[in-house]
Amino acid sequence: MIPNNSTGAMRISIALVAGILAVSACQSPPAEDPGTDTDPFFDRATEREAIRDVLMRQQEAWNAGDLEAFMDDYVREDTLRFTSGAQVRYGWDSAMERYLTTYPDRSAMGNLTFDDLAIDVLSNEWALVFGAWHLKRSGAYDDIGGRYTLLMHRGAQGWKVVYDHTSQGDQ
Amino acid sequence: MIPNNSTGAMRISIALVAGILAVSACQSPPAEDPGTDTDPFFDRATEREAIRDVLMRQQEAWNAGDLEAFMDDYVREDTLRFTSGAQVRYGWDSAMERYLTTYPDRSAMGNLTFDDLAIDVLSNEWALVFGAWHLKRSGAYDDIGGRYTLLMHRGAQGWKVVYDHTSQGDQ
Repeated sequence: MIPNNSTGAMRISIALVAGILAVSACQSPPAEDPGTDTDPFFDRATEREAIRDVLMRQQEAWNAGDLEAFMDDYVREDTLRFTSGAQVRYGWDSAMERYLTTYPDRSAMGNLTFDDLAIDVLSNEWALVFGAWHLKRSGAYDDIGGRYTLLMHRGAQGWKVVYDHTSQGDQ
Repeated sequence: MIPNNSTGAMRISIALVAGILAVSACQSPPAEDPGTDTDPFFDRATEREAIRDVLMRQQEAWNAGDLEAFMDDYVREDTLRFTSGAQVRYGWDSAMERYLTTYPDRSAMGNLTFDDLAIDVLSNEWALVFGAWHLKRSGAYDDIGGRYTLLMHRGAQGWKVVYDHTSQGDQ
């Protein structure tokens, strides 16, 4: 999961958000999770919105050049799994190091946009997020982009990314 | 998720399987899903084993050149999402077509091995699978490999792949 926003952080229009929610709803397999019935305060639409807020916050952090804030939405555990292409890294520190190495300065970071989001809230504590990422860059750096799948877990700190599988380009 | 097995289908040793289960257990985030408590017949270890059986069956089908059997473990719905690199396809037919185009004959299919499996059973109906795939090929085709993340859903037909995110090579 690597981030891209062409100019501002909140360019996603109401129409697009509505589209995303509609597509997300269509794509969800039949939801029969009995787990949801045990928590009277659990509401899928609310959690989906909370997760979208996390992603938008990440996009803003990236575009402000604040990698630490961006990484704050990843679980700070050795169990964090970060996959890019065929490469797998475990642990928050390793994921952070990978970002620092791959994106050493603001030019390399460019501007991140997340779009084409599909958020499946599987239960009151698990969600699967799928989306597109685009990095618009200038100078020596090419624009790049691809797709990401995130497993998110809701704990005491709210929704955090537990696993991240990112792919890039055409294959 | 694309498959690789160097010779036979069941080359995964008991030691490797034990290792996989151990690693999978270590990597699982704290499991607090209340959904599991509502089904007295639900057992995580049993479901993990059932999912592993599905993957081994897929590996065997691939290595027997039986793409139809391989694809039988994907949900036959338009909601099936298949991502490879930056490309996304929806629906069983589209995923099948992609396999037929990318792997037109036995030489292109080669021999598939799945390894480095981590299976997280999130609830009695959802699981996340992560693994490595390798295709050993000869002739005009190079060996290829990468990683895959699958969201699996347990319905009347057992565990089926709902979403597949595959990546290849080094990125």
